[in-house]
Amino acid sequence: MNRQQLFDLICQKKSFLCVGLDSDIKKIPSHLLDSDDPVFEFNKQIIEATIDFAVAYKPNLAFYESRGIKGVESLAKTVNLLKSYGNQVFTIADAKRGDIGNTSAQYAKAVFDEAVSGFSFDAVTVAPYMGEDSVKPFLDFPGKWAIILALTSNKGADDFQLIEGTDSSRLFERVLYVSQKWGNADNIMYVVGATRAEMLAEVRKIVPDHFLLVPGVGSQGGSLREVASYGMNNKCGILVNASRSIIFASSDNDFAIKSRIEAQNMQQEMELLLMEKGLI
Amino acid sequence: MNRQQLFDLICQKKSFLCVGLDSDIKKIPSHLLDSDDPVFEFNKQIIEATIDFAVAYKPNLAFYESRGIKGVESLAKTVNLLKSYGNQVFTIADAKRGDIGNTSAQYAKAVFDEAVSGFSFDAVTVAPYMGEDSVKPFLDFPGKWAIILALTSNKGADDFQLIEGTDSSRLFERVLYVSQKWGNADNIMYVVGATRAEMLAEVRKIVPDHFLLVPGVGSQGGSLREVASYGMNNKCGILVNASRSIIFASSDNDFAIKSRIEAQNMQQEMELLLMEKGLI
Repeated sequence: MNRQQLFDLICQKKSFLCVGLDSDIKKIPSHLLDSDDPVFEFNKQIIEATIDFAVAYKPNLAFYESRGIKGVESLAKTVNLLKSYGNQVFTIADAKRGDIGNTSAQYAKAVFDEAVSGFSFDAVTVAPYMGEDSVKPFLDFPGKWAIILALTSNKGADDFQLIEGTDSSRLFERVLYVSQKWGNADNIMYVVGATRAEMLAEVRKIVPDHFLLVPGVGSQGGSLREVASYGMNNKCGILVNASRSIIFASSDNDFAIKSRIEAQNMQQEMELLLMEKGLI
Repeated sequence: MNRQQLFDLICQKKSFLCVGLDSDIKKIPSHLLDSDDPVFEFNKQIIEATIDFAVAYKPNLAFYESRGIKGVESLAKTVNLLKSYGNQVFTIADAKRGDIGNTSAQYAKAVFDEAVSGFSFDAVTVAPYMGEDSVKPFLDFPGKWAIILALTSNKGADDFQLIEGTDSSRLFERVLYVSQKWGNADNIMYVVGATRAEMLAEVRKIVPDHFLLVPGVGSQGGSLREVASYGMNNKCGILVNASRSIIFASSDNDFAIKSRIEAQNMQQEMELLLMEKGLI
């Protein structure tokens, strides 16, 4: 899916919501534990309940890998279900990968090359610490995206990302300056946390056209209106992720309908923001 | 395995060799492709051929994930085989993980918590970009290790790791200064590439006691003698990794014996270096 198609999808659904599938088996409703694959069953019901209001889904690979082979099986079924919706969803492997070139090429196959790995996500999150050759292999797949960590939503972001270099740019700014040359706004996005919404304005000065994946709205406390105010561009330019606040809206039998209500609430707020920006 | 036990193992085997299991199915001898699990069969023969000369094995998870569920199965069998050697091997998941705290906790389970994931590596490589809470969950497992990327062996390392901050420390130095406070020399190691052997001396000034995992000797061109000269401490303090130069020493039927010869050559050079240092 290219940038225009993603923008078209946003206009069609009047939403820039990404639902994070951080599907912790310890937090899913207990009545699902009797099914053959409780995590897939949970994801299936969440996806079906929220698909009208979400443009993207972001399985967080850690929550699947922590269950070993069974977890990877749940993930594969989840991605297959998402792919069945065709261009109605954008899929993101939240994996934070990054290694030397020949190894990143293998990670790229793991998430993009269905023929060898069984997985065909539209995008993957990548860590920039190892530099250009650690990210480039992800950009070699036409139509696929690398979403590079810039400024993350966690407390530890302060440890290194905000360190100022002798050229007066902070590390996350340097990542933006340098890495945008590795690809373009049609194959690179950036992660910028909603917990630092005012920083989005500074990010926008450096990368005016790129999409930003913005975690941290919802359970982590970021404000949707602030994120839109500082982060939107003329193709929307933001995907706002919410995970726990949607998928764990209830831990009872009504979890799916409660997740739908949460997603719809966010979509309605997003629709208003898109209208205010004159995009729909 | 704690630091003293690792040092004891090094003294016993007179080796600080780590064999990197970057077991690319496209590069393994073609006669193995007929077996049920060619990659596991390859790993098994490599491990059995080199176990006398290697203290550690480091499966590179990318090469398994790129084959999807089948790859994860090959990995699980490989790790089980390695664990059957008990305290005769130290096992490293080369995964370069790192995410916000609650997610890193899941990645830690994925590699350390056998009861839930089926995997029980001794150590895992982690990326520092997201800071303290992205690494801490790996340190919560007693007896396990986080091996933090400091200065990597690839060209892209220059993009960010060598950037000098306003306090005159380069990013990789700052990572060393800051992250050593998150744990201690019994649960943290650092990745420092052999392609920059002279930098090892500067690393040693900051972290005199920590073990360093040193990739880049062999195919990537680093010199073992230089690495030992700059990097060794009084508990050896280095694990030198070689991957392709050992496991792909031959692509024919003799691949196992050729890998043994390569590993033995390295062990003999290491024995000399350990003797010169007065450690054995």
